[in-house]
Amino acid sequence: MMKQNKYDDNDFFSAYTSMPRSVKGLEGAGEWHAFQRLLPNLQNKQVLDLGCGLGWHCRYAREQLARSVTGVDLSSNMLQMAREMTDDSSITYIQSAMEDVAFPDRAFDVVISSLAFHYVASFERISEKVCRYLKEGGNFVFSVEHPMYTARNEQDWHYDEQGNRLHWPVDRYQAEGLRDTPFLTAHVTKYHRTMSTYINSLIRAGFRIDAIEEPMPSVEMLSKLPEMKDECRRPMFLIISARKS
Amino acid sequence: MMKQNKYDDNDFFSAYTSMPRSVKGLEGAGEWHAFQRLLPNLQNKQVLDLGCGLGWHCRYAREQLARSVTGVDLSSNMLQMAREMTDDSSITYIQSAMEDVAFPDRAFDVVISSLAFHYVASFERISEKVCRYLKEGGNFVFSVEHPMYTARNEQDWHYDEQGNRLHWPVDRYQAEGLRDTPFLTAHVTKYHRTMSTYINSLIRAGFRIDAIEEPMPSVEMLSKLPEMKDECRRPMFLIISARKS
Repeated sequence: MMKQNKYDDNDFFSAYTSMPRSVKGLEGAGEWHAFQRLLPNLQNKQVLDLGCGLGWHCRYAREQLARSVTGVDLSSNMLQMAREMTDDSSITYIQSAMEDVAFPDRAFDVVISSLAFHYVASFERISEKVCRYLKEGGNFVFSVEHPMYTARNEQDWHYDEQGNRLHWPVDRYQAEGLRDTPFLTAHVTKYHRTMSTYINSLIRAGFRIDAIEEPMPSVEMLSKLPEMKDECRRPMFLIISARKS
Repeated sequence: MMKQNKYDDNDFFSAYTSMPRSVKGLEGAGEWHAFQRLLPNLQNKQVLDLGCGLGWHCRYAREQLARSVTGVDLSSNMLQMAREMTDDSSITYIQSAMEDVAFPDRAFDVVISSLAFHYVASFERISEKVCRYLKEGGNFVFSVEHPMYTARNEQDWHYDEQGNRLHWPVDRYQAEGLRDTPFLTAHVTKYHRTMSTYINSLIRAGFRIDAIEEPMPSVEMLSKLPEMKDECRRPMFLIISARKS
Protein backbone atom coordinates (compact mmCIF):
# COMPACT_ATOMS: atom_id res chain seq x y z
CA MET A 1 0.00 0.00 0.00
CA MET A 2 1.22 3.48 -0.92
CA LYS A 3 1.95 5.41 2.27
CA GLN A 4 0.21 8.72 2.47
CA ASN A 5 2.54 11.63 1.92
CA LYS A 6 0.45 14.79 2.05
CA TYR A 7 3.46 16.75 3.29
CA ASP A 8 4.95 16.57 -0.21
CA ASP A 9 1.87 18.32 -1.60
CA ASN A 10 3.19 21.88 -1.78
CA ASP A 11 -0.02 23.71 -0.79
CA PHE A 12 -0.49 21.44 2.18
CA PHE A 13 3.15 21.77 3.19
CA SER A 14 3.01 25.53 2.95
CA ALA A 15 -0.07 25.57 5.24
CA TYR A 16 1.70 23.20 7.64
CA THR A 17 4.81 25.37 7.81
CA SER A 18 2.61 28.33 8.81
CA MET A 19 1.28 26.58 11.93
CA PRO A 20 2.69 27.87 15.27
CA ARG A 21 4.38 24.51 15.89
CA SER A 22 6.27 24.89 12.58
CA VAL A 23 7.16 28.58 12.95
CA LYS A 24 7.99 28.63 16.66
CA GLY A 25 9.11 25.03 17.02
CA LEU A 26 8.50 23.09 20.20
CA GLU A 27 7.38 26.12 22.22
CA GLY A 28 4.56 26.60 19.72
CA ALA A 29 3.18 23.12 20.40
CA GLY A 30 0.58 22.99 23.18
CA GLU A 31 1.60 19.52 24.32
CA TRP A 32 5.39 20.03 24.30
CA HIS A 33 5.68 20.92 28.01
CA ALA A 34 4.10 17.56 28.90
CA PHE A 35 6.13 15.60 26.33
CA GLN A 36 9.35 17.18 27.57
CA ARG A 37 8.53 16.22 31.17
CA LEU A 38 8.24 12.55 30.19
CA LEU A 39 11.56 12.39 28.34
CA PRO A 40 14.47 10.68 30.10
CA ASN A 41 17.86 12.35 30.44
CA LEU A 42 19.20 12.37 26.87
CA GLN A 43 22.86 13.04 27.59
CA ASN A 44 25.10 10.66 25.68
CA LYS A 45 22.12 8.71 24.38
CA GLN A 46 21.51 7.38 20.88
CA VAL A 47 18.12 8.72 19.92
CA LEU A 48 15.70 7.78 17.13
CA ASP A 49 12.81 10.08 16.13
CA LEU A 50 10.09 8.39 14.05
CA GLY A 51 8.21 10.93 11.96
CA CYS A 52 10.70 13.70 12.70
CA GLY A 53 9.05 16.32 10.45
CA LEU A 54 11.03 19.56 10.52
CA GLY A 55 13.54 18.08 12.98
CA TRP A 56 12.66 20.15 16.05
CA HIS A 57 12.84 17.16 18.41
CA CYS A 58 16.10 15.96 16.83
CA ARG A 59 17.75 19.32 17.43
CA TYR A 60 16.33 19.45 20.95
CA ALA A 61 17.84 16.03 21.70
CA ARG A 62 21.25 17.29 20.61
CA GLU A 63 20.88 20.41 22.78
CA GLN A 64 20.34 17.93 25.61
CA LEU A 65 23.67 16.40 24.63
CA ALA A 66 22.41 13.23 22.96
CA ARG A 67 25.37 11.43 21.38
CA SER A 68 23.63 10.93 18.05
CA VAL A 69 20.16 11.45 16.66
CA THR A 70 18.45 9.74 13.73
CA GLY A 71 15.30 11.34 12.32
CA VAL A 72 13.03 9.39 9.96
CA ASP A 73 10.32 10.97 7.83
CA LEU A 74 8.53 10.10 4.62
CA SER A 75 8.34 13.65 3.27
CA SER A 76 11.19 15.10 1.24
CA ASN A 77 9.74 18.60 1.78
CA MET A 78 9.96 18.08 5.53
CA LEU A 79 13.47 16.68 5.46
CA GLN A 80 14.77 19.35 3.12
CA MET A 81 13.62 22.06 5.50
CA ALA A 82 14.87 20.05 8.49
CA ARG A 83 18.32 19.82 6.91
CA GLU A 84 18.33 23.55 6.18
CA MET A 85 17.64 24.26 9.85
CA THR A 86 20.21 21.75 11.10
CA ASP A 87 23.95 22.31 11.34
CA ASP A 88 25.04 19.25 13.25
CA SER A 89 26.86 16.18 11.92
CA SER A 90 25.48 14.05 14.77
CA ILE A 91 21.97 14.32 13.37
CA THR A 92 21.11 12.01 10.46
CA TYR A 93 17.87 12.37 8.52
CA ILE A 94 16.52 9.36 6.63
CA GLN A 95 13.70 9.61 4.13
CA SER A 96 11.50 6.56 4.62
CA ALA A 97 8.10 5.44 5.80
CA MET A 98 8.60 4.53 9.43
CA GLU A 99 7.01 1.13 8.79
CA ASP A 100 9.77 0.33 6.25
CA VAL A 101 12.92 1.65 7.90
CA ALA A 102 15.11 -0.96 9.62
CA PHE A 103 17.84 -0.72 12.24
CA PRO A 104 19.97 -3.27 14.06
CA ASP A 105 18.61 -4.70 17.30
CA ARG A 106 19.41 -2.61 20.38
CA ALA A 107 20.73 0.31 18.29
CA PHE A 108 19.06 3.04 20.38
CA ASP A 109 18.69 4.16 23.99
CA VAL A 110 15.63 6.31 23.36
CA VAL A 111 12.95 6.29 20.66
CA ILE A 112 10.62 9.28 20.39
CA SER A 113 7.78 10.16 18.06
CA SER A 114 5.54 13.20 17.95
CA LEU A 115 2.05 13.04 16.40
CA ALA A 116 2.99 10.52 13.72
CA PHE A 117 1.63 7.09 14.69
CA HIS A 118 -1.98 7.98 13.93
CA TYR A 119 -0.87 7.91 10.28
CA VAL A 120 0.33 4.30 10.61
CA ALA A 121 -1.96 1.32 9.98
CA SER A 122 -0.52 -1.08 12.57
CA PHE A 123 0.61 0.25 15.92
CA GLU A 124 1.28 -3.33 16.99
CA ARG A 125 3.98 -3.67 14.34
CA ILE A 126 5.53 -0.31 15.31
CA SER A 127 5.65 -1.37 18.98
CA GLU A 128 7.39 -4.64 18.13
CA LYS A 129 9.94 -2.91 15.89
CA VAL A 130 10.72 -0.16 18.39
CA CYS A 131 11.15 -2.76 21.14
CA ARG A 132 13.72 -4.59 19.02
CA TYR A 133 15.64 -1.38 18.21
CA LEU A 134 15.87 -0.40 21.88
CA LYS A 135 18.49 -1.49 24.35
CA GLU A 136 17.28 -3.23 27.49
CA GLY A 137 15.72 -0.57 29.74
CA GLY A 138 15.51 1.91 26.86
CA ASN A 139 12.75 4.51 26.71
CA PHE A 140 9.94 4.94 24.21
CA VAL A 141 8.10 8.28 24.52
CA PHE A 142 5.52 9.30 21.94
CA SER A 143 2.47 11.45 21.36
CA VAL A 144 -0.57 10.72 19.21
CA GLU A 145 -3.92 12.32 18.73
CA HIS A 146 -6.12 11.09 21.56
CA PRO A 147 -8.49 8.19 20.79
CA MET A 148 -11.36 10.39 21.93
CA TYR A 149 -10.24 12.91 19.32
CA THR A 150 -9.80 10.51 16.39
CA ALA A 151 -13.02 8.52 16.84
CA ARG A 152 -15.13 10.48 14.33
CA ASN A 153 -14.08 11.52 10.84
CA GLU A 154 -15.07 15.11 11.54
CA GLN A 155 -12.69 15.70 14.46
CA ASP A 156 -14.64 18.78 15.41
CA TRP A 157 -16.87 20.17 18.15
CA HIS A 158 -20.63 19.94 18.12
CA TYR A 159 -21.98 23.49 17.68
CA ASP A 160 -25.29 25.18 18.35
CA GLU A 161 -26.95 27.36 15.72
CA GLN A 162 -25.02 30.41 16.90
CA GLY A 163 -21.75 28.58 16.37
CA ASN A 164 -20.99 27.99 20.06
CA ARG A 165 -19.12 24.84 20.96
CA LEU A 166 -21.61 22.70 22.88
CA HIS A 167 -19.46 19.64 23.58
CA TRP A 168 -17.04 17.21 21.96
CA PRO A 169 -18.91 14.42 20.15
CA VAL A 170 -17.65 10.83 20.35
CA ASP A 171 -18.91 8.04 18.11
CA ARG A 172 -17.60 4.83 16.46
CA TYR A 173 -15.02 4.57 19.24
CA GLN A 174 -14.76 0.78 19.07
CA ALA A 175 -14.54 0.72 15.24
CA GLU A 176 -10.79 1.00 14.76
CA GLY A 177 -9.39 1.88 11.36
CA LEU A 178 -9.33 4.56 8.70
CA ARG A 179 -10.63 8.04 9.28
CA ASP A 180 -10.81 10.69 6.59
CA THR A 181 -10.24 13.99 8.34
CA PRO A 182 -10.00 17.61 7.23
CA PHE A 183 -6.60 19.10 8.15
CA LEU A 184 -5.27 22.36 6.77
CA THR A 185 -5.84 22.45 2.99
CA ALA A 186 -6.62 18.76 2.53
CA HIS A 187 -8.28 15.63 3.78
CA VAL A 188 -5.80 13.34 5.46
CA THR A 189 -6.17 9.68 6.27
CA LYS A 190 -5.62 8.75 9.88
CA TYR A 191 -6.04 5.56 11.82
CA HIS A 192 -8.27 5.61 14.85
CA ARG A 193 -7.44 3.13 17.56
CA THR A 194 -8.61 2.80 21.14
CA MET A 195 -6.71 3.64 24.29
CA SER A 196 -6.59 -0.08 25.13
CA THR A 197 -5.00 -0.92 21.77
CA TYR A 198 -2.22 1.62 22.37
CA ILE A 199 -1.49 0.38 25.87
CA ASN A 200 -1.96 -3.36 25.34
CA SER A 201 0.13 -3.37 22.13
CA LEU A 202 3.03 -1.83 24.02
CA ILE A 203 2.76 -4.31 26.88
CA ARG A 204 2.51 -7.28 24.53
CA ALA A 205 5.56 -6.08 22.59
CA GLY A 206 7.64 -6.10 25.78
CA PHE A 207 7.21 -2.62 27.23
CA ARG A 208 6.34 -1.54 30.70
CA ILE A 209 4.16 1.59 30.93
CA ASP A 210 5.84 4.35 32.95
CA ALA A 211 3.23 7.09 32.60
CA ILE A 212 0.53 8.41 30.33
CA GLU A 213 -0.46 12.04 29.88
CA GLU A 214 -3.53 13.66 28.41
CA PRO A 215 -1.95 17.11 28.40
CA MET A 216 -3.66 20.43 28.86
CA PRO A 217 -2.08 23.62 27.53
CA SER A 218 0.37 25.11 30.03
CA VAL A 219 -0.81 27.87 32.36
CA GLU A 220 1.39 30.26 30.40
CA MET A 221 -0.18 29.30 27.09
CA LEU A 222 -3.70 29.50 28.56
CA SER A 223 -3.07 33.04 29.74
CA LYS A 224 -1.58 34.14 26.39
CA LEU A 225 -4.18 32.37 24.23
CA PRO A 226 -7.50 32.33 26.15
CA GLU A 227 -9.22 30.51 23.26
CA MET A 228 -7.19 27.46 24.27
CA LYS A 229 -9.34 26.98 27.38
CA ASP A 230 -11.60 24.71 25.31
CA GLU A 231 -8.66 22.31 25.19
CA CYS A 232 -9.54 21.43 28.81
CA ARG A 233 -12.98 20.22 27.76
CA ARG A 234 -11.59 17.10 26.07
CA PRO A 235 -8.08 15.74 25.54
CA MET A 236 -6.64 16.30 22.07
CA PHE A 237 -3.39 14.41 22.64
CA LEU A 238 -2.20 11.28 24.36
CA ILE A 239 1.43 10.90 25.40
CA ILE A 240 2.80 7.56 26.57
CA SER A 241 6.12 6.89 28.22
CA ALA A 242 7.18 3.23 28.23
CA ARG A 243 10.32 1.29 28.94
CA LYS A 244 11.69 -1.92 27.41
CA SER A 245 11.61 -4.43 30.24
CA MET B 1 -17.17 13.51 55.12
CA MET B 2 -20.20 11.21 55.22
CA LYS B 3 -19.80 8.49 52.61
CA GLN B 4 -22.68 8.24 50.19
CA ASN B 5 -24.85 5.21 50.84
CA LYS B 6 -27.71 5.34 48.35
CA TYR B 7 -27.96 1.57 48.42
CA ASP B 8 -29.52 1.77 51.87
CA ASP B 9 -32.32 3.95 50.49
CA ASN B 10 -34.98 1.28 50.03
CA ASP B 11 -36.54 2.61 46.81
CA PHE B 12 -33.14 2.92 45.21
CA PHE B 13 -32.09 -0.51 46.41
CA SER B 14 -35.26 -2.08 45.10
CA ALA B 15 -34.61 -0.51 41.66
CA TYR B 16 -31.00 -1.71 41.81
CA THR B 17 -32.01 -5.27 42.61
CA SER B 18 -34.25 -5.29 39.53
CA MET B 19 -31.33 -4.61 37.15
CA PRO B 20 -30.19 -7.58 35.03
CA ARG B 21 -26.81 -7.59 36.81
CA SER B 22 -28.61 -8.03 40.15
CA VAL B 23 -31.16 -10.59 39.01
CA LYS B 24 -28.94 -12.68 36.74
CA GLY B 25 -25.64 -12.03 38.46
CA LEU B 26 -22.41 -11.82 36.52
CA GLU B 27 -23.90 -13.12 33.27
CA GLY B 28 -26.28 -10.15 33.33
CA ALA B 29 -23.40 -7.66 33.35
CA GLY B 30 -22.25 -6.57 29.90
CA GLU B 31 -18.62 -6.18 30.95
CA TRP B 32 -18.28 -9.44 32.91
CA HIS B 33 -16.82 -11.49 30.01
CA ALA B 34 -13.95 -8.98 29.75
CA PHE B 35 -13.45 -8.72 33.51
CA GLN B 36 -13.34 -12.50 33.84
CA ARG B 37 -10.70 -12.75 31.10
CA LEU B 38 -8.39 -10.42 33.05
CA LEU B 39 -8.65 -12.31 36.34
CA PRO B 40 -5.69 -14.48 37.34
CA ASN B 41 -6.14 -18.10 38.37
CA LEU B 42 -7.91 -17.84 41.74
CA GLN B 43 -7.30 -21.34 43.02
CA ASN B 44 -6.01 -21.31 46.60
CA LYS B 45 -5.81 -17.52 46.59
CA GLN B 46 -6.85 -15.10 49.32
CA VAL B 47 -9.16 -12.65 47.61
CA LEU B 48 -10.49 -9.22 48.63
CA ASP B 49 -13.47 -7.62 46.86
CA LEU B 50 -13.86 -3.87 47.47
CA GLY B 51 -17.46 -2.76 46.99
CA CYS B 52 -18.73 -6.33 46.79
CA GLY B 53 -22.43 -5.42 46.53
CA LEU B 54 -24.56 -8.54 46.36
CA GLY B 55 -21.50 -10.79 46.55
CA TRP B 56 -21.58 -12.20 43.02
CA HIS B 57 -17.83 -11.84 42.52
CA CYS B 58 -17.10 -13.27 45.97
CA ARG B 59 -19.10 -16.40 45.21
CA TYR B 60 -17.50 -16.66 41.77
CA ALA B 61 -14.04 -16.54 43.38
CA ARG B 62 -14.97 -19.44 45.62
CA GLU B 63 -16.32 -21.42 42.66
CA GLN B 64 -12.85 -20.89 41.20
CA LEU B 65 -11.49 -22.48 44.40
CA ALA B 66 -10.17 -19.34 46.10
CA ARG B 67 -9.02 -20.27 49.61
CA SER B 68 -10.88 -17.39 51.25
CA VAL B 69 -12.78 -14.32 50.11
CA THR B 70 -13.43 -11.07 51.93
CA GLY B 71 -16.14 -8.76 50.59
CA VAL B 72 -16.38 -5.15 51.75
CA ASP B 73 -19.38 -2.92 51.18
CA LEU B 74 -20.88 0.13 52.84
CA SER B 75 -24.51 -0.87 52.38
CA SER B 76 -26.25 -3.07 54.93
CA ASN B 77 -29.03 -3.76 52.39
CA MET B 78 -26.46 -5.11 49.96
CA LEU B 79 -24.67 -7.23 52.53
CA GLN B 80 -27.87 -8.62 53.97
CA MET B 81 -28.91 -9.87 50.55
CA ALA B 82 -25.35 -11.06 49.84
CA ARG B 83 -25.37 -13.10 53.04
CA GLU B 84 -28.77 -14.59 52.17
CA MET B 85 -27.38 -15.75 48.82
CA THR B 86 -24.14 -17.11 50.32
CA ASP B 87 -23.71 -20.46 52.05
CA ASP B 88 -19.96 -20.60 52.43
CA SER B 89 -17.91 -20.12 55.58
CA SER B 90 -14.85 -19.09 53.54
CA ILE B 91 -16.57 -15.88 52.45
CA THR B 92 -16.56 -13.03 54.97
CA TYR B 93 -18.60 -9.87 54.41
CA ILE B 94 -17.53 -6.67 56.17
CA GLN B 95 -19.73 -3.59 56.33
CA SER B 96 -17.46 -0.58 55.86
CA ALA B 97 -16.58 2.21 53.50
CA MET B 98 -13.70 0.87 51.47
CA GLU B 99 -11.66 3.98 52.31
CA ASP B 100 -11.91 3.10 56.04
CA VAL B 101 -11.38 -0.64 56.13
CA ALA B 102 -7.90 -1.83 57.09
CA PHE B 103 -6.05 -5.11 56.62
CA PRO B 104 -2.55 -6.30 57.48
CA ASP B 105 0.17 -5.76 54.88
CA ARG B 106 0.39 -8.54 52.28
CA ALA B 107 -2.86 -10.17 53.45
CA PHE B 108 -4.18 -10.92 49.94
CA ASP B 109 -3.09 -12.49 46.66
CA VAL B 110 -5.78 -10.83 44.57
CA VAL B 111 -7.85 -7.66 45.05
CA ILE B 112 -10.85 -7.10 42.79
CA SER B 113 -13.44 -4.37 42.57
CA SER B 114 -16.39 -3.97 40.23
CA LEU B 115 -17.84 -0.53 39.44
CA ALA B 116 -17.17 0.91 42.88
CA PHE B 117 -14.16 3.25 42.70
CA HIS B 118 -16.03 5.99 40.87
CA TYR B 119 -17.81 6.51 44.20
CA VAL B 120 -14.51 7.13 46.01
CA ALA B 121 -12.95 10.60 46.29
CA SER B 122 -9.29 9.59 46.12
CA PHE B 123 -8.21 6.81 43.80
CA GLU B 124 -4.62 7.56 44.75
CA ARG B 125 -5.32 6.55 48.35
CA ILE B 126 -7.12 3.36 47.25
CA SER B 127 -4.16 2.40 45.04
CA GLU B 128 -1.70 2.86 47.88
CA LYS B 129 -3.83 0.84 50.32
CA VAL B 130 -4.43 -2.00 47.88
CA CYS B 131 -0.72 -2.16 47.09
CA ARG B 132 0.05 -2.56 50.81
CA TYR B 133 -2.58 -5.29 51.26
CA LEU B 134 -1.23 -7.32 48.34
CA LYS B 135 1.57 -9.83 48.42
CA GLU B 136 4.51 -9.23 46.09
CA GLY B 137 3.33 -10.08 42.55
CA GLY B 138 -0.32 -9.99 43.62
CA ASN B 139 -3.03 -8.94 41.18
CA PHE B 140 -5.36 -5.97 41.25
CA VAL B 141 -8.22 -6.16 38.73
CA PHE B 142 -11.02 -3.61 38.78
CA SER B 143 -13.67 -1.97 36.65
CA VAL B 144 -14.94 1.60 36.79
CA GLU B 145 -17.16 3.71 34.62
CA HIS B 146 -15.01 4.97 31.76
CA PRO B 147 -13.61 8.51 32.07
CA MET B 148 -15.31 9.35 28.78
CA TYR B 149 -18.57 8.24 30.38
CA THR B 150 -18.23 10.12 33.67
CA ALA B 151 -17.03 13.46 32.27
CA ARG B 152 -20.44 15.17 32.18
CA ASN B 153 -23.04 15.16 34.93
CA GLU B 154 -25.72 14.00 32.50
CA GLN B 155 -24.04 10.73 31.50
CA ASP B 156 -26.35 10.48 28.53
CA TRP B 157 -26.36 10.56 24.74
CA HIS B 158 -26.94 13.69 22.70
CA TYR B 159 -30.30 13.27 20.93
CA ASP B 160 -31.93 14.88 17.93
CA GLU B 161 -35.51 16.19 18.10
CA GLN B 162 -36.88 12.76 17.17
CA GLY B 163 -35.07 11.20 20.10
CA ASN B 164 -32.35 9.48 18.05
CA ARG B 165 -28.94 9.12 19.65
CA LEU B 166 -26.65 11.38 17.63
CA HIS B 167 -23.38 10.83 19.48
CA TRP B 168 -21.88 10.66 22.97
CA PRO B 169 -21.05 14.14 24.27
CA VAL B 170 -17.82 14.75 26.20
CA ASP B 171 -17.11 17.91 28.17
CA ARG B 172 -15.23 18.99 31.33
CA TYR B 173 -12.91 16.01 30.87
CA GLN B 174 -9.94 17.64 32.58
CA ALA B 175 -12.02 18.93 35.52
CA GLU B 176 -11.76 16.00 37.90
CA GLY B 177 -14.11 15.73 40.85
CA LEU B 178 -17.74 15.44 41.82
CA ARG B 179 -20.46 14.64 39.33
CA ASP B 180 -24.13 14.55 40.20
CA THR B 181 -25.67 11.88 38.00
CA PRO B 182 -29.14 10.43 37.59
CA PHE B 183 -29.12 6.66 38.28
CA LEU B 184 -32.23 4.58 38.80
CA THR B 185 -34.55 6.42 41.21
CA ALA B 186 -32.03 8.94 42.51
CA HIS B 187 -29.16 11.26 41.84
CA VAL B 188 -25.88 9.73 42.88
CA THR B 189 -22.58 11.43 43.46
CA LYS B 190 -19.68 10.07 41.48
CA TYR B 191 -16.12 11.18 41.02
CA HIS B 192 -14.89 11.78 37.52
CA ARG B 193 -11.20 11.27 36.94
CA THR B 194 -9.13 11.01 33.80
CA MET B 195 -7.62 7.91 32.24
CA SER B 196 -4.16 9.24 33.11
CA THR B 197 -5.09 9.63 36.79
CA TYR B 198 -6.21 6.00 36.96
CA ILE B 199 -3.08 4.69 35.28
CA ASN B 200 -0.50 7.00 36.81
CA SER B 201 -1.88 6.55 40.36
CA LEU B 202 -1.45 2.80 40.04
CA ILE B 203 2.10 3.10 38.71
CA ARG B 204 3.08 5.59 41.44
CA ALA B 205 1.63 3.32 44.13
CA GLY B 206 3.88 0.47 42.97
CA PHE B 207 1.83 -1.36 40.35
CA ARG B 208 2.76 -2.49 36.89
CA ILE B 209 -0.04 -2.30 34.31
CA ASP B 210 -0.76 -5.70 32.74
CA ALA B 211 -3.68 -4.77 30.50
CA ILE B 212 -6.57 -2.39 30.13
CA GLU B 213 -9.91 -3.13 28.55
CA GLU B 214 -12.66 -0.88 27.26
CA PRO B 215 -15.10 -3.74 26.86
CA MET B 216 -17.84 -4.12 24.30
CA PRO B 217 -20.82 -6.38 24.94
CA SER B 218 -20.09 -9.97 23.97
CA VAL B 219 -21.21 -11.20 20.54
CA GLU B 220 -23.78 -13.35 22.31
CA MET B 221 -25.21 -10.40 24.21
CA LEU B 222 -25.26 -8.24 21.08
CA SER B 223 -27.29 -10.84 19.22
CA LYS B 224 -29.75 -11.28 22.10
CA LEU B 225 -30.08 -7.58 22.88
CA PRO B 226 -29.65 -5.62 19.64
CA GLU B 227 -30.18 -2.30 21.45
CA MET B 228 -26.75 -2.88 23.01
CA LYS B 229 -25.05 -2.10 19.68
CA ASP B 230 -24.86 1.54 20.77
CA GLU B 231 -22.42 0.36 23.45
CA CYS B 232 -19.85 0.10 20.62
CA ARG B 233 -20.16 3.82 19.89
CA ARG B 234 -18.36 4.82 23.09
CA PRO B 235 -16.88 2.84 25.98
CA MET B 236 -18.99 2.75 29.14
CA PHE B 237 -16.50 0.83 31.28
CA LEU B 238 -12.78 0.70 31.88
CA ILE B 239 -11.16 -2.42 33.32
CA ILE B 240 -7.56 -2.38 34.50
CA SER B 241 -5.41 -5.33 35.43
CA ALA B 242 -2.27 -4.46 37.39
CA ARG B 243 0.32 -6.33 39.40
CA LYS B 244 2.29 -5.34 42.51
CA SER B 245 5.87 -5.17 41.30
